[in-house]
Amino acid sequence: MESTNLIKALSWRYATKRMNGNAIADEKLHTILEAIKLAPSSLGFTPYSILVIKDKAIREKMLPHCYNQPQIVESDAVVVFAAWTNFNEGQVDKYMAEIAAKRNVPVESLSGFAANIKGKINNSSNEDLLIWAEKQVYIALGFGLAAAAVEGVDTTPMEGFVPAGVDEVLGLKEKGLTSVCLLALGYRDEEKDFLSKAAKVRRADEELFIHI
Amino acid sequence: MESTNLIKALSWRYATKRMNGNAIADEKLHTILEAIKLAPSSLGFTPYSILVIKDKAIREKMLPHCYNQPQIVESDAVVVFAAWTNFNEGQVDKYMAEIAAKRNVPVESLSGFAANIKGKINNSSNEDLLIWAEKQVYIALGFGLAAAAVEGVDTTPMEGFVPAGVDEVLGLKEKGLTSVCLLALGYRDEEKDFLSKAAKVRRADEELFIHI
Repeated sequence: MESTNLIKALSWRYATKRMNGNAIADEKLHTILEAIKLAPSSLGFTPYSILVIKDKAIREKMLPHCYNQPQIVESDAVVVFAAWTNFNEGQVDKYMAEIAAKRNVPVESLSGFAANIKGKINNSSNEDLLIWAEKQVYIALGFGLAAAAVEGVDTTPMEGFVPAGVDEVLGLKEKGLTSVCLLALGYRDEEKDFLSKAAKVRRADEELFIHI
Repeated sequence: MESTNLIKALSWRYATKRMNGNAIADEKLHTILEAIKLAPSSLGFTPYSILVIKDKAIREKMLPHCYNQPQIVESDAVVVFAAWTNFNEGQVDKYMAEIAAKRNVPVESLSGFAANIKGKINNSSNEDLLIWAEKQVYIALGFGLAAAAVEGVDTTPMEGFVPAGVDEVLGLKEKGLTSVCLLALGYRDEEKDFLSKAAKVRRADEELFIHI
């Protein structure tokens, strides 16, 4: 793949405020989700779930909890990145079983790694673990944004919503999850979106980067 | 760009534990940094700086604060994602001036947006602002990981280090910064790295994704 094309795609994307409701081809959505799945996370633990909301009625219910931002319903799908709120050793054992199966190694050979993660879970407050999980979510958000841009699908990464409200609409609390950020996926409405023709603003290289 | 190539690149990458010291072409490094620069952040505020450490002696000094993980010195460069630790209205005014200049609009037209960000800064604790900044950093980390994979450059995203130690080596405190995560960039040493041939483990689609 030519990297100049990735840079072009990342330059093309912007936080789309108005979308036109056009549908995203299944294959494109699948590719974006595949990229999200391939995102790394600390210790490979993936302490989050990814909800893909295509159902328009559900998105209508989310809307008031998202400050009525139109891309919630003008998009074709909203991805909800939801962090785990409860951590326990059983999750670690399950993860070890997955590694053992995938790599065809005895689960006992992973005992050091398992102890490492269990130590983190047992020695951290639930609040700190949630913040840690939330950070991992943002890597996946980054992968989703990049893949969508390559697919020519517009996106809005969103923190502007009330997690408790979205959690209630989606029944996340019962699932041991809480919403961290949203990614609206769809197609820009160039006429309605005042940002569609605005130049991208980034801090100048000499201010953003420090070379040592 | 064909998305299958992005997926291939993201599948090819893994958290490289041993690198061979080979140099990264300037052009490739530039492209990776360009992708990092293009990462979005909440409100476009970009509350972080990006340090690019090629200097081997400095990386040697970082090493003990990174649990002596060899990729710190076996890589060709380590990118340090450092969040701002101090927030003030002057940063907002500067950002507004940048937008106004880039988009050729009067800075007064941005007063609502400025008030929005200033409100966030003035009504949040420094601790909450730091967590918020740290999350944004992880989007940029994601973009860097994706771009490096496309360039065929190996990476290690790293949380396993002592921020206070790295901050001291790099003089970050004086700059109003603190290290959040690292990204080692280089080339895998296939023989030495026990992970180089290991199958990638990801949670099964039906467990990671919830479709609604």
